Amino acid sequence: MSEFTEYMTRDLAEGLRLVDEGVTAARGFRAGATSCGIKSEPGTPDMAMLVADAPCVTVGTFTTSHTPSHTVILCKEHLAASGLHGQAVVVNSGNANCANGERGARDAARMAELTAQKFGVDENLVYVSSTGIIGRPLPMENVERGIAQMEVRADGGHEFARGIITTDTRPKTIAVEFEVGGKTARLGGSTKGAGMIYPNMATMLCYLTTDAACAPEFLRAELRAAVADSFNMVCMDGDMSTNDTVLLFANGLAGNAPLTADSPDAKAFRAALRHVTRYLAREMARDGEGATKLMVVEVKGAASDEDARRAARAVTASPLWQCALAGGDPNWGRIFAALGASGAEMNPDRLDIALDDLQIVAAGVATSYDQAEAKGIMAKNEVAVRVNLHQGGFAATAWGCDLTHGYIDENTTYTR
Amino acid sequence: MSEFTEYMTRDLAEGLRLVDEGVTAARGFRAGATSCGIKSEPGTPDMAMLVADAPCVTVGTFTTSHTPSHTVILCKEHLAASGLHGQAVVVNSGNANCANGERGARDAARMAELTAQKFGVDENLVYVSSTGIIGRPLPMENVERGIAQMEVRADGGHEFARGIITTDTRPKTIAVEFEVGGKTARLGGSTKGAGMIYPNMATMLCYLTTDAACAPEFLRAELRAAVADSFNMVCMDGDMSTNDTVLLFANGLAGNAPLTADSPDAKAFRAALRHVTRYLAREMARDGEGATKLMVVEVKGAASDEDARRAARAVTASPLWQCALAGGDPNWGRIFAALGASGAEMNPDRLDIALDDLQIVAAGVATSYDQAEAKGIMAKNEVAVRVNLHQGGFAATAWGCDLTHGYIDENTTYTR
Repeated sequence: MSEFTEYMTRDLAEGLRLVDEGVTAARGFRAGATSCGIKSEPGTPDMAMLVADAPCVTVGTFTTSHTPSHTVILCKEHLAASGLHGQAVVVNSGNANCANGERGARDAARMAELTAQKFGVDENLVYVSSTGIIGRPLPMENVERGIAQMEVRADGGHEFARGIITTDTRPKTIAVEFEVGGKTARLGGSTKGAGMIYPNMATMLCYLTTDAACAPEFLRAELRAAVADSFNMVCMDGDMSTNDTVLLFANGLAGNAPLTADSPDAKAFRAALRHVTRYLAREMARDGEGATKLMVVEVKGAASDEDARRAARAVTASPLWQCALAGGDPNWGRIFAALGASGAEMNPDRLDIALDDLQIVAAGVATSYDQAEAKGIMAKNEVAVRVNLHQGGFAATAWGCDLTHGYIDENTTYTR
Repeated sequence: MSEFTEYMTRDLAEGLRLVDEGVTAARGFRAGATSCGIKSEPGTPDMAMLVADAPCVTVGTFTTSHTPSHTVILCKEHLAASGLHGQAVVVNSGNANCANGERGARDAARMAELTAQKFGVDENLVYVSSTGIIGRPLPMENVERGIAQMEVRADGGHEFARGIITTDTRPKTIAVEFEVGGKTARLGGSTKGAGMIYPNMATMLCYLTTDAACAPEFLRAELRAAVADSFNMVCMDGDMSTNDTVLLFANGLAGNAPLTADSPDAKAFRAALRHVTRYLAREMARDGEGATKLMVVEVKGAASDEDARRAARAVTASPLWQCALAGGDPNWGRIFAALGASGAEMNPDRLDIALDDLQIVAAGVATSYDQAEAKGIMAKNEVAVRVNLHQGGFAATAWGCDLTHGYIDENTTYTR
């Protein structure tokens, strides 16, 4: 079993089956990508598109930055105007369409308009994402050419996944099949996001599709909960870059009765959404800029849900611990300090810390653990940090990666 | 005029004169350093001591980490037990005495006890600091030898400054002279702190001495205000590492009537304390681990004091902007994104951003600034980022540095 497959099937809940094609795995979705010269390297895909055969119930979560991109503003407007419906999304990379003033708003609207015309759908059902450099006007001639030449296909999920990535080293996509209301449904997704080593720095874009029929309010609540446990735990608050966007489209073609919170099969849908979003979140962490190792931080015994999340995120976000991880140095003092700084309620004299299954701190003091064993764990390409705060019954998991020269090299001359 | 002198005299307020000797510039203080083998490199100073001839009014600010070191806990206890008085401080580097359980508390107390015995002062008047690796017991045999062999001198200020540094590339010390209540007084200080590229990662230690007579409550309020505008603005909250400590000793030997908030000369004292703390803060930023450039972020037009601080700190703390600074890339989108993520109230369409005096963003949109000029500014060893939020009348300054391979190299194998 390849590493790829291992990650995809890890923790796969009962009743879920892996299927291929990502965002086009569910029936009634087509997708594609093209190159239109927004990025300077010729032939690099820099535009992607996703279209549903019929209007979908559509929900989204977005950055809470006070300087959001023009595309994020547009998406929120369209969700409101359409009453949580959508039918298409157009994504460009290479340019964030952020900090472009009135022109930026106009360009985002034009992208939606052209896409709407191409497929004969209502403009308010079209969503727009941009990612890349901030503060440069979109080259609209290229954008218009890209939209015109775009071809979308029922097997275009992988092409879409490749079309939305920027500094990612590989596409990230997955889909699962499950039973809901006596029908077989699918849910798939693709994400991009790599400059995300720190909590406030990610630009992540994620598109999810399903043919399960869902009531809008149910879908909104489910997406919010899934994002809280996945993308918001990837060493970023999710809410912090200018362009962060997660959109979920449900076209109902599976033919089940629309799911609500009271549906017996809400659980099956939830398991599918959780698997897809957590897989994509972990893949984002594994593929952080310059990353060579995945860090998984599991905190339990927290006094509150918020404390558990805060403590877990603080460890993934510690640049000193990230450096130690890069160097394979089991310098757990960095974990101890990051936990203390997290603001989560704790008593240092009760803290337990383990690396994988090796307990290195018990009741706040180093155990007589084997240094060679600790270094062996730190040398692996995935390291789990397990913390018990012994303050209460709440737990959380966060994902991160190491901090290497590669991260710096990638970001010293980004705009050149 | 050397760079060193230029930084020392920059913004020197009227009535302040630079003097030599740092923490021993004020009369009635002696200091020294020694090597006792806590650090593995033989002959490296790893212990320093400061002693006053008479009990001093003493105030301090400390980390608010939930996992503070045993020494921080002891300092707070002694401030309470003595009613804000003190006469000596002993500092070791190479070992943080943090996460050592009951033994850690005992060792910190023993350091105070031995120092008290050495000088015949009350144990509650002795303060203790440790900095270095977390989670290893203090080698008390070495500590005891160090305290025994320590010599303190009235001209020992520079030796003290060298004795407290760890990964710093140079000592940081300054003193000024000023008139207060018809008398001539001095105020000096030394600091250490270099692993402080991120807000929650610094261990900073700072010791300040003055012969100006000050009422305890006055001194406490003045120190708090000075730290808020200096160390807490060095790309760290000051409150976040396990060991952060700032202590200020006032022995009153200048002979002035003790200063209170109502004293006409409170202002002169405030100017002296402000100059010393801001100089030391800036020096810490300039000497960040791996740093090649000083970043000064000046935010004005904020809706509140907290917003101004938050926005300024967010820019200094952005690893992506730190990388851009290292590479000399005027990628101001990183500044824009960091400001948006800071949580400070703002309208992106009103933001102004300048690099030094070159305005690059006006009302949220790039100006037609000269790229070569921007790159010229970014190539300097000090770069000012000037932001106007146009939301209100509050301003703040923060200091930071660039993020380089050097930072990573220093932290990948810290405990080896």
